[in-house]
Amino acid sequence: MAALQNDRLLRALLRQPVDRTPIWIMRQAGRYLPEYRATRERAGSFMDLCRNPELACEVTLQPLERFELDAAILFSDILTVPDAMGLGLYFEAGEGPRFERPVRTARDVDALPVPDPEDELGYVMDAVRTIRRALAGRVPLLGFSGSPWTLATYMVEGGSSKEFAHSKGLLYGQPAVLHALLDKLARAVTAYLNAQVAAGAQALMIFDTWGGTLTPAAYGEFSLRYMRQVVEGLTREHEGRPVPVILFTKGGGQWLERQADTGCDALGLDWTLDIGDARARVGERVALQGNMDPGVLYGSAQAIRNEVTRILADFGPYPGHVFNLGHGIHQHIDPENVRVLVDAVHELSAPYHSPGG
Amino acid sequence: MAALQNDRLLRALLRQPVDRTPIWIMRQAGRYLPEYRATRERAGSFMDLCRNPELACEVTLQPLERFELDAAILFSDILTVPDAMGLGLYFEAGEGPRFERPVRTARDVDALPVPDPEDELGYVMDAVRTIRRALAGRVPLLGFSGSPWTLATYMVEGGSSKEFAHSKGLLYGQPAVLHALLDKLARAVTAYLNAQVAAGAQALMIFDTWGGTLTPAAYGEFSLRYMRQVVEGLTREHEGRPVPVILFTKGGGQWLERQADTGCDALGLDWTLDIGDARARVGERVALQGNMDPGVLYGSAQAIRNEVTRILADFGPYPGHVFNLGHGIHQHIDPENVRVLVDAVHELSAPYHSPGG
Repeated sequence: MAALQNDRLLRALLRQPVDRTPIWIMRQAGRYLPEYRATRERAGSFMDLCRNPELACEVTLQPLERFELDAAILFSDILTVPDAMGLGLYFEAGEGPRFERPVRTARDVDALPVPDPEDELGYVMDAVRTIRRALAGRVPLLGFSGSPWTLATYMVEGGSSKEFAHSKGLLYGQPAVLHALLDKLARAVTAYLNAQVAAGAQALMIFDTWGGTLTPAAYGEFSLRYMRQVVEGLTREHEGRPVPVILFTKGGGQWLERQADTGCDALGLDWTLDIGDARARVGERVALQGNMDPGVLYGSAQAIRNEVTRILADFGPYPGHVFNLGHGIHQHIDPENVRVLVDAVHELSAPYHSPGG
Repeated sequence: MAALQNDRLLRALLRQPVDRTPIWIMRQAGRYLPEYRATRERAGSFMDLCRNPELACEVTLQPLERFELDAAILFSDILTVPDAMGLGLYFEAGEGPRFERPVRTARDVDALPVPDPEDELGYVMDAVRTIRRALAGRVPLLGFSGSPWTLATYMVEGGSSKEFAHSKGLLYGQPAVLHALLDKLARAVTAYLNAQVAAGAQALMIFDTWGGTLTPAAYGEFSLRYMRQVVEGLTREHEGRPVPVILFTKGGGQWLERQADTGCDALGLDWTLDIGDARARVGERVALQGNMDPGVLYGSAQAIRNEVTRILADFGPYPGHVFNLGHGIHQHIDPENVRVLVDAVHELSAPYHSPGG
């Protein structure tokens, strides 16, 4: 493997000194880029793109050609694991992801296999290997998965949801069935992420998109507990380097201390809390990733630079900050505003770091 | 006016002793009730129902016929004010509310009138008067409005939104235009709520459904500031009694202390924080309303009673708790579960209060 030329991301996730604050952007390979839309067009459906390692590699690298980003992230979908469990993932225009066979009963849960990552999910591992080769050490490659709770909501609802009727019905009506599903998912996610590391992922992120829809107690019992189970089962060193793990619960800013206790290396933050307050709360236990409102990118270049200035000052001159948006970039953002953001982070963060890292 | 027979709600909002914790339910007059669906069918469209004082009164009273609730809440929509400003509200099947003429520019904002509540919004005041008469002192009547920021998002986006592209574009691109809109809305909302009080509303609630989509700084500047402006302009005593004001920012649990500083009497809480922690944070400054996850009502009767037990114990033996869900009741909830909830709150809260209140 080629030596890593830019290790800012990995160093920052481990709270080691860097020369500038690293930045990557959730959903950086996506619909806001015309070159992404062109590749997507060629691929066919969204899942055809995910399942084609060459094209997944192509779109993963596209944002790196435009912007001075400090990481690549595997292009894939969080629903690959439930799909590999046999639920029949499809996408309905304007409706988002759907499953042909939702999971609702103890019998449904019992029947679910824990997929072999190199078999049913081999196309993801092929994409990781292809991307890693193509990166040739330019920046590190992040792998990822949805959290067990987040995957469970899609599997139980049969798709996206606003009210989580069936998942909350299980949670408050048949919690044992939900626990059985979450335990199976924790095992599947652990195997999936470890296979990504074996294939070349150099850091990992767990996306708990829907953990913030729970009460503090239910979050602990049904989401955090299973993320902890995943974190405890992960390969934490590979190729002679630590493999840092980022845990991100959207809307979970009230529970940072508990998230930091899972054994992860870093926490993702949305934009509803000040990153300086977050740092004061978690101290030196974890690094922090975030936390600009993606909506700032609809604003002026000056507003983007102002927000970058504020967030960097708020975090202060400490090790352990990875700049990112607080959620995925929206599809109607002008790519030029992303350039303003990335350049501002590198330029404006330098004074917070010692020369040479 | 008939004397008020059940003043638990008003007393609890003012942190005065009561015999049992009062309960009402956000969207208690709604689609989960077959009798509501029947009236709605007769009325025609949703807005036809809102605009018909007799039918609005009928649906407002329906949940009180079924359950031992401690308050009625005016049946109306938060978008009546923007509609009265001439934006052309309509409802598209499956799409939610839409405006024919969204507000996007300084010129659009300048052209907006501040509606006269007894003229363009006279149908709402007629509904308040009709309901108040029909209640005959049984329980108090709550009036309400959307917050300036929440109304602005619908007006700028032209309807519901997930990404708030246009509102965030204004916020981070042309903040002066947004401030002009919010100031106008604050004046319109103040006049609208004061007219509801004059017509008979005995307590008020401001719904800031979308404040939780903002950064802490933007929340202060674009949402909280204008709610404070509204609160400062409200009639706080009428018919010889105080008129308590409840402020509710969905997803705003991180900012309770700042909300308590607006001069309101009570804060609404969603279910992502423990009500005991919230009470410790705001101390004796405000009462608290909440905070059961509406999803619990998909669960078993035992789960409902368990959650009621937990929330009551968490709040403890203090004055100033109004039980409610943390957001509106969902449409597919079994009304029998609402009965379980209401009865559980009255039964299980008695030991926390002195006999006789």
